[in-house]
Order: sequence, then structure tokens, then C-alpha cells
Amino acid sequence: MEGVDYLAPERNKAQFDVEEMKIVWAGSRDAFEVSDRIARLVASDPAFRKDNRTMLGRKELFKNTLRKTASAWKRIIELRLNEEEARRLRSFIDEPAFTDLHWGMFVPAIKGQGTDEQQQKWLPLAYKMQIIGSYAQTELGHGSNVQGLETTATFDPQTDEFVIHSPTLTSCKWWPGGLGKISTHAVVYARLITDGQDRGVHGFIVQLRSLDDHLPLPGITVGDIGMKFGNAAYNTMDNGVLRFDHVRIPRNQMLMRVSQVTREGKYVHSNVPRQLVYGTMVYVRQTIVSDASTALSRAVCIATRYSAVRRQFGSHNGSPETQVIDYKTQQARLFPLLASAYAFRFVGEWLKWLYMDVTRRLEANDFLTLPEAHACTAGLKSLTTSATADGIEECRKLCGGHGYLCSSGLPELFAVYVPACTYEGDNIVLLLQVARHLMKTISQLGSGKMPVGTTAYMRRAEHLMQCRSDVKEAKDWLRPNVVLETFEARAVRMSVACAKNLSKFTSPEEGFQELSADLVEAAVAHCQLIVVAKFIEKLQQDIPGKGVKQQLEILCSVYALFLLHKHQGDFLSTGCITPTQASLANDQLRSLYSQVRPNAIALVDAFNHTDHYLGSVLGRYDGNVYPKLYEEAWKDPLNDSVIPDGFQEYVRPMLKQQLRNARL
Amino acid sequence: MEGVDYLAPERNKAQFDVEEMKIVWAGSRDAFEVSDRIARLVASDPAFRKDNRTMLGRKELFKNTLRKTASAWKRIIELRLNEEEARRLRSFIDEPAFTDLHWGMFVPAIKGQGTDEQQQKWLPLAYKMQIIGSYAQTELGHGSNVQGLETTATFDPQTDEFVIHSPTLTSCKWWPGGLGKISTHAVVYARLITDGQDRGVHGFIVQLRSLDDHLPLPGITVGDIGMKFGNAAYNTMDNGVLRFDHVRIPRNQMLMRVSQVTREGKYVHSNVPRQLVYGTMVYVRQTIVSDASTALSRAVCIATRYSAVRRQFGSHNGSPETQVIDYKTQQARLFPLLASAYAFRFVGEWLKWLYMDVTRRLEANDFLTLPEAHACTAGLKSLTTSATADGIEECRKLCGGHGYLCSSGLPELFAVYVPACTYEGDNIVLLLQVARHLMKTISQLGSGKMPVGTTAYMRRAEHLMQCRSDVKEAKDWLRPNVVLETFEARAVRMSVACAKNLSKFTSPEEGFQELSADLVEAAVAHCQLIVVAKFIEKLQQDIPGKGVKQQLEILCSVYALFLLHKHQGDFLSTGCITPTQASLANDQLRSLYSQVRPNAIALVDAFNHTDHYLGSVLGRYDGNVYPKLYEEAWKDPLNDSVIPDGFQEYVRPMLKQQLRNARL
Repeated sequence: MEGVDYLAPERNKAQFDVEEMKIVWAGSRDAFEVSDRIARLVASDPAFRKDNRTMLGRKELFKNTLRKTASAWKRIIELRLNEEEARRLRSFIDEPAFTDLHWGMFVPAIKGQGTDEQQQKWLPLAYKMQIIGSYAQTELGHGSNVQGLETTATFDPQTDEFVIHSPTLTSCKWWPGGLGKISTHAVVYARLITDGQDRGVHGFIVQLRSLDDHLPLPGITVGDIGMKFGNAAYNTMDNGVLRFDHVRIPRNQMLMRVSQVTREGKYVHSNVPRQLVYGTMVYVRQTIVSDASTALSRAVCIATRYSAVRRQFGSHNGSPETQVIDYKTQQARLFPLLASAYAFRFVGEWLKWLYMDVTRRLEANDFLTLPEAHACTAGLKSLTTSATADGIEECRKLCGGHGYLCSSGLPELFAVYVPACTYEGDNIVLLLQVARHLMKTISQLGSGKMPVGTTAYMRRAEHLMQCRSDVKEAKDWLRPNVVLETFEARAVRMSVACAKNLSKFTSPEEGFQELSADLVEAAVAHCQLIVVAKFIEKLQQDIPGKGVKQQLEILCSVYALFLLHKHQGDFLSTGCITPTQASLANDQLRSLYSQVRPNAIALVDAFNHTDHYLGSVLGRYDGNVYPKLYEEAWKDPLNDSVIPDGFQEYVRPMLKQQLRNARL
Repeated sequence: MEGVDYLAPERNKAQFDVEEMKIVWAGSRDAFEVSDRIARLVASDPAFRKDNRTMLGRKELFKNTLRKTASAWKRIIELRLNEEEARRLRSFIDEPAFTDLHWGMFVPAIKGQGTDEQQQKWLPLAYKMQIIGSYAQTELGHGSNVQGLETTATFDPQTDEFVIHSPTLTSCKWWPGGLGKISTHAVVYARLITDGQDRGVHGFIVQLRSLDDHLPLPGITVGDIGMKFGNAAYNTMDNGVLRFDHVRIPRNQMLMRVSQVTREGKYVHSNVPRQLVYGTMVYVRQTIVSDASTALSRAVCIATRYSAVRRQFGSHNGSPETQVIDYKTQQARLFPLLASAYAFRFVGEWLKWLYMDVTRRLEANDFLTLPEAHACTAGLKSLTTSATADGIEECRKLCGGHGYLCSSGLPELFAVYVPACTYEGDNIVLLLQVARHLMKTISQLGSGKMPVGTTAYMRRAEHLMQCRSDVKEAKDWLRPNVVLETFEARAVRMSVACAKNLSKFTSPEEGFQELSADLVEAAVAHCQLIVVAKFIEKLQQDIPGKGVKQQLEILCSVYALFLLHKHQGDFLSTGCITPTQASLANDQLRSLYSQVRPNAIALVDAFNHTDHYLGSVLGRYDGNVYPKLYEEAWKDPLNDSVIPDGFQEYVRPMLKQQLRNARL
């Protein structure tokens, strides 16, 4: 029954214009058009098929990815794709590859930290892929503590060179993608030593492999660090280990935009502000938040469609069983994740604006908002990636047993996503950074230094510390201002409580350590407020399309009230709401789920994911799940033969009671 | 530095007798001795090495498992292991295999549901593995709703046979382990049809493959359902798909202990109580709870040891950095999981007793406690498996980036564990069963029918509805009675609130559907109370060994107060405690973490896991993590050659700008 849309009845229920919602999700008509065109291009190109990848051994899998990266680059050249189109093409191919590091880290590092001269020399080579770069920061012994890296780069004034060296086993570079087998170059972070003095960690461009025969250069030991979590997933990437034995590079390969070493070995600073590095962080984390919404939307799309296809229990007199999406327990787990995907999308969009704002200010030497912007992006990276990782796994569970099959797409989506909780800042370490910023902001409240940006609500701390919610009936919880003030009050009260407890310690640092678990909770409350606030802000814009805005209002309420219910302990213990008000919020939430229900399929259709990109039998657009699951099963290598390899040697002797004499 | 114990300083800190704690963990000196002996036997036998399994392709992996199962069976015969020893041997080999279904489901199904005659015929064959059995219940279209299975077994009085048939695609058997490639027989669940009447689902022994050439018998289509979540993990198992085309079996292969079909085709019942099937469920779920504590203990052991090895930040003047286990944020995530492992161990032990009690009562035709025992095991299965799955992933995250490597052991532990949340009853469906039981119990409170077993506290509902905690300072939270009554009050109040809300609906079933999310929360509260209560009961026993009981008291408080903090919304909204008391509980919890800290390594040593069983470089007993991580990396197949397969065809043309003409 190819061509039948089994979900058509669901689609007909939608109360809004899906095509207009697609534009809202994409961010603009233009962004939608590009994304849609490139997604279809990838989906229709046999070079990018991905249906067998979870069955391949490591070598085959890796080779397959090399083939895809070459095909991708060929298409990019042939079709003269621009930078944005090329980026999307790579992302729709949907396999981690060495090119991610090359384009996403190596090139930006040179752009951000290289002098004009260095950029002129290296970027053209990189743009043409005449060299392939990686980004070698983390070491076996150091991840979060970048300032603790052990690799050294010692200036030798005699030869005008740096000597890059790994003094210990733990100083081996460890994790950088592309490094293991492919990169010809890397930006390597190492402690700069001049005049016998440690000048801290700096970046250096180091060639790793010969451009002739691709063999590692003298003094360089490099390899792959081995299998990682999941089927296919990041095993398509050659995360690497790299050890230096006194490798020499010319002095002009230190990235010198901010600090320089002169011919004489003097260590000097340029007038370029060091804070620039924070601008880069804001940029990278903003893309992570945007990727979180995409990853979560994929899982939610799969689970929602399958929940409409799957039926279980509730048959009366031969009628069909109940669609599992109609069960309240399913809705109470699934719809908040649907709402979260939209919430993260909009906060990601806002972060793009924030990055531009920060950049503009940095260029004008205005550092006023930087700490707040830095804390806010750190917090949102943490919040959205943790929620997305958990959300993907929850979606997998929502698909029951079949979600455990690779053909559901969910296991790989989870495994490939979870490192986002750790890379670019461990999520708990980031929340502690947010907490530090909050404690500082509170300590300055009396000083006349006004909180800015996402902490601006703290200006009203006095009011927020004592206000009481005036919610009297369930529908009061639909008023954005009521929700917003409740979240503000909770956030400020939790932060102030931490600040008070901190003040009881004689050593603030000791207090911070001791209370860090509470501080993390206060930081989460602050970050959730930001997401809720930005969703509400989004809804103050003009949003065209029949019913589109109404649907988003419902999702915004679902997101906020779900959080309120989940964290009601926070709201109650700080006295922001009463138990009765908490219960009313829960009642309202339940009734919102009923409003989401008829629109659920259309709301995930609005993500505009192709079946190729979803890579899930359960999430197929047409809902034709069971025949395709059955078809997929037979593709497993174990089904190549009726009698499996090993049966004659190992199982037959058991059955025939001849095991005693068998050689195993 | 082989042979050095890097964790010796940690072990020296322990304030209790680790050897005695090992006995407590194992359940008895005897259980410890068996477990210890068999674990060492497996660990030292080269046949059971598992270090390369995450790198193998599906076929190789499966073949490797067949070899191990044969080796295991050979050892079992050679060493004349008894049933318990054999079971442990298989579990320490630590790979899902077809034998799990044979011993764990096929044999028990015949024992539980077969007549004496059937047992005499089939069990000896199964015990010698002359036949290999699977357990074919779930279908492509039905999992939770067993009564909705579609496979039919139609009695043909002419030939005295049943005709087993798969009338639809969705009626294919789907998931049974061992079925895909190995099982010769299966207990197949199908709708019994006699006289044209549907008699509901019954079990039938069906031969699937020839005992001569292992080919599927006529009318049988059978194969593997394909790759599942994770590296190795359940891919060592041939979960299968099975389709019947009018397959005939003799009448005496219906399992007839409870119901029979006579030669004439009459459907009759024996006087064996049907409730027996619940006894089996209690048994199976009790083993799942026990397995949960084991799985969680492995993850906790790895994360705890690595947290003591890993250092990050906090170096002053060249001193070593801080062990990450000393950070409160790490403790606040790790130590509750450590406490949970112990809590689940003890509740599992109690469930063993409960199973025996239920069995005794069933034999005496006493069904009074059965509904309560059934609900309680369902709830504990749900609670412990969900917490364990989440806990393993949390432990993985606690290991930072390196936890993402397969060599950490954690990815596989997670992937192999998570199906426990779905099999033998989806965890949410089970909680709804618990909730139904609670609602029924409450509705009967006035009727003189006394709540029994784990619901006995509801006899004091009147008191619990209005009692107030008298906690005045943090240490009051260490009093077991205070904790217990608080958990009882929360559970009863949440259940009563649900019951009240339910009574507002005209149709109770509609109300149950509408409020199901709240009912799930009430069920969780009840189940958490059980775990806390059983931990407290355990501590009322005499527990020998220096400091052992004190450590367990600390862990019991950690477990209870962690739950109290996590769910403080429940406790506050039901008025069981005040915000101040909640805050005192949190203070007490923090101080308990400091007491756990010096004992943490010894507390995980007490699990007595061998390095083989842990299968984790990060969790090594000796703490020699970094050199071994480095060593492991080089074993990856990608490191077999310096230049990877595919480089010449795909990457070189990119670097040399010759891609336009390359054939990809």
C-alpha cells in the first residue's frame, strides 16, 4: 500500500496552517526555502543513503563516511553552494565527520585568533580543503579545566621556533574529532613557555601529517581513541589521540591576534581585547542551542507519529484499539517535549540576536553586557542539551519495545546527541558559572550597578521577594504576565536564599563549594525563566497564518506549566504559589493537552523533516509502520543465511550432547 | 606500574569492615561464597574474555556469543555446577544469549503451566539442552495488551491437532530472544479457538526448527529482527520474528495445567487456581528488581572509582588538583545512586521472601494477599528499573567525556539495561496497575476490609491525613520513624486526593483516564515508601561487622532524604512538611554526603565486582585508569593501519583538488 497516507485523518484534524508554521519554525521564509531545498536534495541523492549504517563494522562504517564527505564536497562544488547551503547539506547528511571539526572549529579558530597575515595564509588552503584541520584542546587528563592543560610550546629563540611537547601521558590530546586518521593540521592548545616562564594556554597551528603520503610527521604519534557509545553514531568520526615528542613549528604558527611572541622571545599583547574569546563561546553555544531544538524535534516527531499509529487496549466489540497518543500518560510525557522543542527553537533564535548584539558591542569596546551574555548562553546550553538528551530517551521509551530497534532511529539519535551535555562545557560546570554570575549580580544589587539583559528582572527583586500570585482559577494560568512573574519570583527567591546561606560562611569559596548543589538548582530556575520569557516575547510579535499563533500560545503554556508542575517544590517552598494554585496549574495543563492532541501531528509536520533525515521506520511521514518494520528486519546480516555462522561448531554439539569432546 | 593500587589511600579511609559488608550485599555468607567463586572462575577463563566485543560486526558478535554459550555449558557440565551456580555463571559471562530465554522463560513456562505429564516429557529434554526453547508472546502489533494477541490456535477435532496461524502481519511474533536463529522450540501464546469460539490467550509448545538440519519446519517463517540499541549489548541476542502459516501441532502440546481441550474439543478448566500465573509474575519481577540493584551497583562502582581517580581544578602552588569526588555537585548526583543500589538490593531481598510467602499461600488456596503482592511487585519493578536506567546514564555523565567511550563500559551497560523499563510490563502501565490497586484499597477503607502488606499503613489513613511532622532541626530527619511517617503521609494524601478527584467523574473509567498522570505520581509515592520502609526494616535486624550498620544507616537516610528533596513538591503541596522542614532535610542531606565521602570507595568495593564483570577501564579496582585508556585505544580496528581504508579513494582527491573527476 505504497503511497497511502495513514496519518491523513490526523492531518485533517489540524486547526492551523501548517505551511505557515513551517516558516515560523525555520525562522523566516528564506531560511525555510534553503533548508527545504537542501534537505530534499540530500534525501533524493543515493550517495547519502543511510539505511544500513548501524550494521557496519567500524572500518566499513568509517570508510562509508569518508565516501559521503567526498560526495558532499563534490556536490558543494558542482552546485556552487554558498556557505550556509553547504553547512546545511553537511547537517542533513547526518553523520559526524572530520569535516565538522574542519569547518566548525579549525576555520573559526584561525578566523578568531589568527592575525590578518595568518588568516591570509591559512584560510584559502582550508577553504579549498587543501589542508584538513582539527581542534586539539582536551587532553587525556584535562577537559573542563582548560587552564590545566599540560602540553607545552616552548619558544626556542635560536631557531625562531616553538617546540610542541607532551610531557606526560595525561597530556596526550584526546577526543579531537578528525584527528585520529584524517586531519593534516590542527590548532593545538598548549602552555606557552618563553624565557622559562609559563604564559598560559595559547593556540598553535601544527601540521600533523605529510601532504604527500599522509603519514604522521616525525615526533607525532596519532591514532583513533576507539569505539564510542551507540550504533554508528559518533563512530563515523575519528576522535583521536595525539602525542608530541618535541615537534618544532615556526614562530608564526602561534595564533597571535591577542598575544604575540616576538623574534626575541618577548611575550606581548596586542590591543585586541581578550574578551573576544567570549564572543566565540557565545557563538558556538548559540549553535548548540539551535541544534538541541532540532535534535529534540526529530525525536518528538518520531514519537508523536508512532503514538498516532500505535494502538493498544480499549477495543470494544471489535472496534479498533485506542491510539496510544490518546492516553493522558502518553500526552503528559510527550506534549511537554513537543512544547520544549518549540521553546528551544525560539530561545535559540533569540541567542542569534544576542550574539550579534555582543559582537557589535565588542567592536565598540563595550564590555558591559558581556558577563551576562556569557552566563546566559552557558546556562541555556546546559539547560537545552540536558533536556534534549533526556527528552530523546523519553521519546524512545514512548515508542515501547520498537523504540529499542535501530530501525526506529531513536537509539542512534540519542547516542549521537548525548555528548552535547559534556562538550563545550560540562553542563553542571556551566550551571555553576551561571550561579556565580547570579550571586555576583545579587551582591551588587544595592550598589547601583543595575542588572542587565536576562538578569534585568532582579531590579525588581524587592517586589519579587514578597509578591503573591493572584491565580484564583485554572485559566488564570494562561495569562503570560502571571506565569512570567511566578517564574521570576521563584528564580530570584532561590538565588537570594543561596546568597543568604553563602553569607554564613567565612570563606565565600568554601561556601560556594558546600552549597553548590543548591546553587545549581537556582541557576536552573534562572535559565528556565529565560526560556519561558523568550517564548512569551516571541508571541508578542506579529505571527501570520490561520491559527498559528494560537497553537504557539498553547505550547508556551504547556511548556511553562509543565515546568511549574515538575518543579513545584521550588515554587511552593519559596512561597511563590500556594498548593491550591499549584493544583490549578496542573488542572490547566491537563486541559491544554486536550487542545494539543488534534494538532499534534501537524505540529511535528511543521518541523519539515524528510523521512531520510528522520531515519526512522516508526516516524515515517505516511505512518506505514508495520510493513516497513517487517521489511527492515530482513536486511540484518544475520538473516543472510538461514543457519547462522557458528551454529555447526557451537550449538549443534550442545543439541547432540557432544559438547564434552567439542573443541571450542 | 602494574600491581600498584592507586586507590589504596581511599580504601584506608573506610570506617567499616568491607568484608562483612560484602556478606550483607550478597544476602548471606553462603550466597557471597558462591557468587565470589563463580565470578572469579568466569573472570579467569579466557573463553569468556569480553574486551573486543564492541568492535565486532553483527555476525562475528553473534558467533562469538554462540561460542561463549557452548563454553559455558561445557563448564557447567564439567564442573557439575548446580542450578544456582549455573545461573550465576551465565550472568557473570555478561552477554544476553538465547540461553537466557531457554532457562529463564521456556523452562519456567512449562513448569508453571504444563501438566505433570507435559513436564515429564519436555523438561528432561530442555534440561539437557536436547531442545532449545524460546518464549513467543509479544507480536508486532501487541506488547502490553496480551489479551489482544492475534495469533490463533484453532482446534481441529478431526486430526486432534491445533492449527497455529498468523492471520495478519501485525500478528507476527516479534522480539522473543533466541527465536531469530537458534531456538528449536517455543512456548507460543495464541488465541485458542474451539467450536468456533475464542477462548482467549493460551500457551502452546511448538517446534520451530528441525532437530536434524536446524531448518525451519514447513509453514514457519522465522528470522532476526535486526540491530538494537547500543554497542554489542542485546545484539548478541537473536530476537526474532516468527510467522505461522497453518502449522499443526498435537493437542497435547497445549499447556494444560489450568485449562484443557478434550479429545472432543471441549474447553474445560482444572481445579488448579488461575491465580497461579500471578505467582509466576511475582517471581519474574522479583528477579528484575534484584538485577536492577546489580546493574546500578556496577555503574555506581565505575563512577565512584573514577571520581576518586579523576582530578580537575583546584590546584594551588603545584599541589594536585581536586579529586572530582570531593565536589558537592558530584556527591549530590553520585551518592544518592550509591544509596539507591543498596536500597534496591534490600527491597529485592524482601521480594524474594514475598514470593515464597505468596507461593505458600497459593498452595493453601489463600488468595487474600495476592492482589497487594501483585501490585507491589509491579510497582517495584517499575520504580527500580526506571531509576536504574536513569542512574546508569547519570553515572556515565559523571565520568565526563571518557564515559562516552565504550572502554568505560557504561554505554553498553546502559544500552543492555534500558529494555528492562519496557519488558515484563511497560513501567507506566505497571504504575497504573498500582494506582488501580491503591484506589480500590482506599474505596474499601470504610468497608472493614483491611489493607494488607505494603498497603497496611492505609489503616492509619485518618491519622496520616492530618499529622504534622515535628522536625525542628536537621538531625531530626535521621529518625527512622519521622522519615517513615512523612513518606506514609505523602503517599496516603496523594492517593486520597486522586480518589477525591476521581469521584467527581460520572464514569470512573473516564476519570481514571483523565487523571492518569496524577495517579502515576501517587503510585510512585507509594512505591518509594515501600523501598524506604524495607530499608528501615532491614536496619532493625542484627547486622554484624565493625561500622557496617552505621554505614547502612547513613545510606538509608541519604536515600530517603534525597527522595524527599527531589519530590519536595509532593510533600509540601500535601502539607506533610513545611518549607523550613524541607530545607532542614536538605541541610541534613548535605552533611550526610560528607559522611559517605570517606567510605565511598569501600562501599562500592563491597559489591565485590571483578574487573572482568565491570568491563570498564574507568572502574578498574586498582584505579590505573589513564595508561589503560591509552592502551585500549590502540586496539580499535581503525588503528590496524596508519592510513585508513578509503583515504586514497575519497580524501586524497579532496586534498589534491581532484574531486571533480573522481568516481565516488
